[in-house]
Amino acid sequence: MSRVLVTGATGFIGSQTLEPLRELGFEVIAAGSREADLLEPGGAEALVASSRPSHLLHMAWYAEHGRFWDSYENLRWVEASSRLLRAFAQSGGARAVIAGSCAEYDWSGEGRLREGVTPIAPATLYGAAKHSLHVLADAFCARAGIRLAWGRAFFLYGPGEHPGRLVASLSRALVRGEPARCTSGEQVRDFLHVEEAGRAFAALTASDIDGAVNVGSGRPVAIREIASTLGRLSGRPGLVEHGALPSRPGEPPELVADTRRLREEVGFSSSISLEDGLAGTLDWWRARP
Amino acid sequence: MSRVLVTGATGFIGSQTLEPLRELGFEVIAAGSREADLLEPGGAEALVASSRPSHLLHMAWYAEHGRFWDSYENLRWVEASSRLLRAFAQSGGARAVIAGSCAEYDWSGEGRLREGVTPIAPATLYGAAKHSLHVLADAFCARAGIRLAWGRAFFLYGPGEHPGRLVASLSRALVRGEPARCTSGEQVRDFLHVEEAGRAFAALTASDIDGAVNVGSGRPVAIREIASTLGRLSGRPGLVEHGALPSRPGEPPELVADTRRLREEVGFSSSISLEDGLAGTLDWWRARP
Repeated sequence: MSRVLVTGATGFIGSQTLEPLRELGFEVIAAGSREADLLEPGGAEALVASSRPSHLLHMAWYAEHGRFWDSYENLRWVEASSRLLRAFAQSGGARAVIAGSCAEYDWSGEGRLREGVTPIAPATLYGAAKHSLHVLADAFCARAGIRLAWGRAFFLYGPGEHPGRLVASLSRALVRGEPARCTSGEQVRDFLHVEEAGRAFAALTASDIDGAVNVGSGRPVAIREIASTLGRLSGRPGLVEHGALPSRPGEPPELVADTRRLREEVGFSSSISLEDGLAGTLDWWRARP
Repeated sequence: MSRVLVTGATGFIGSQTLEPLRELGFEVIAAGSREADLLEPGGAEALVASSRPSHLLHMAWYAEHGRFWDSYENLRWVEASSRLLRAFAQSGGARAVIAGSCAEYDWSGEGRLREGVTPIAPATLYGAAKHSLHVLADAFCARAGIRLAWGRAFFLYGPGEHPGRLVASLSRALVRGEPARCTSGEQVRDFLHVEEAGRAFAALTASDIDGAVNVGSGRPVAIREIASTLGRLSGRPGLVEHGALPSRPGEPPELVADTRRLREEVGFSSSISLEDGLAGTLDWWRARP
């Protein structure tokens, strides 16, 4: 039986990988921040030594809303991830999947963001740190005999999201009957339900695909359409105030994943429509007023 | 007065930066592996806290001859370098220069290797680790208000070189009167005397140039010409056995730096001819029979 060590297992995405991994036949060692402080010296080594996993799904990272883009914590997570990979190799690990980000790509071009085609040019420290780790992990795993896949997560939403983020903040306002203030929201993004992201990372872990794989829906949607849909589904469309907030300067007009690798090579397909996903998210917030 | 912390200060290149840095007006804090084990938790932090440098010249890395190309130690040095940079930023450091390598470049193309033009595609774990650190350091320093230059060292030679390396091994054999066995040596390389590399890194530290800068001579020379010159200068040309060793498969035919940035922007010029440099190296080995 394959044993997978999941880091960040209590996080937004990580927590959604556990059940799908079990369904795929893995024995799951779930390590949240309480189980193992990967940032402390010896933390990664102790975690690997006690679990001796054949597979590693490394989702842990600094994710403080509003801060993670440019926090120096990103460097600490590169360091911790490198230690974790060394420990995993030394204990005979066979396959690793690490959470990357669409923020690694150059966001100034046009068309779908595609693995191996769209240039890598992160505009944030977060994106640069993920890319730095990918460069290191890719070269290291090739030599250590570890098969590595690198899942580039796009825009996720769903239950458990930080209340400051887009879908969560709109949902919360609407279920409370408060105004849901938005930017004009013309920008188009790729939104994937976090349950599906969890399933995609689990499938990637069980597969033998190497290299970068976009984890997105491949479905373009304008931010304003998300807001409108939430308004309609909540029964309170009048609370949605499009254009009430100023647009952020420099926002790319479109960020959508090319999902061919995820669909055709990993065999993953999305089954939660945006409408159903948003309805479920509203329900989740309704239960937490 | 500017105070520079030099890591790897007892190493092959690092030791050659100290006097040039002093001549440029720096107060020099020289940290060799005895002064600070950067690989230990807290090592980088303690070193920076005790020296409080305005400048950082980070030359330390794993350099074990024959092993460094693919050693896992490269990951430990990425981790240590990241910790060092964080500590440097936290103590208010203003400028950092880090030793990169020509091994970061794609070696399969043609023409001079040029910063920002030649693709980055390291073929070794060493090259990948240096590139990984560059990606991270570049993004971090931009946010931390640290001006960063990244010196890509080419092929160096001179006193103090590991006896297993090309110029050192041929020099040693010749001064001992032993056969100097070579490959056919058609491949062309960029050789720079290590004293000049030391001066170049010191000049780079004192400059305000950002980004990658090749540290090379810009002077193409075939390996067989180096061997022939050493034979002639030693007075024992008959000991040089061209073609006695098999060529390594996959050796690129030519690796030569474009040195425009180093010459025109940093203002560095090479003043040691290859002939003088090799003669001096033979003298150095003659004194250590």
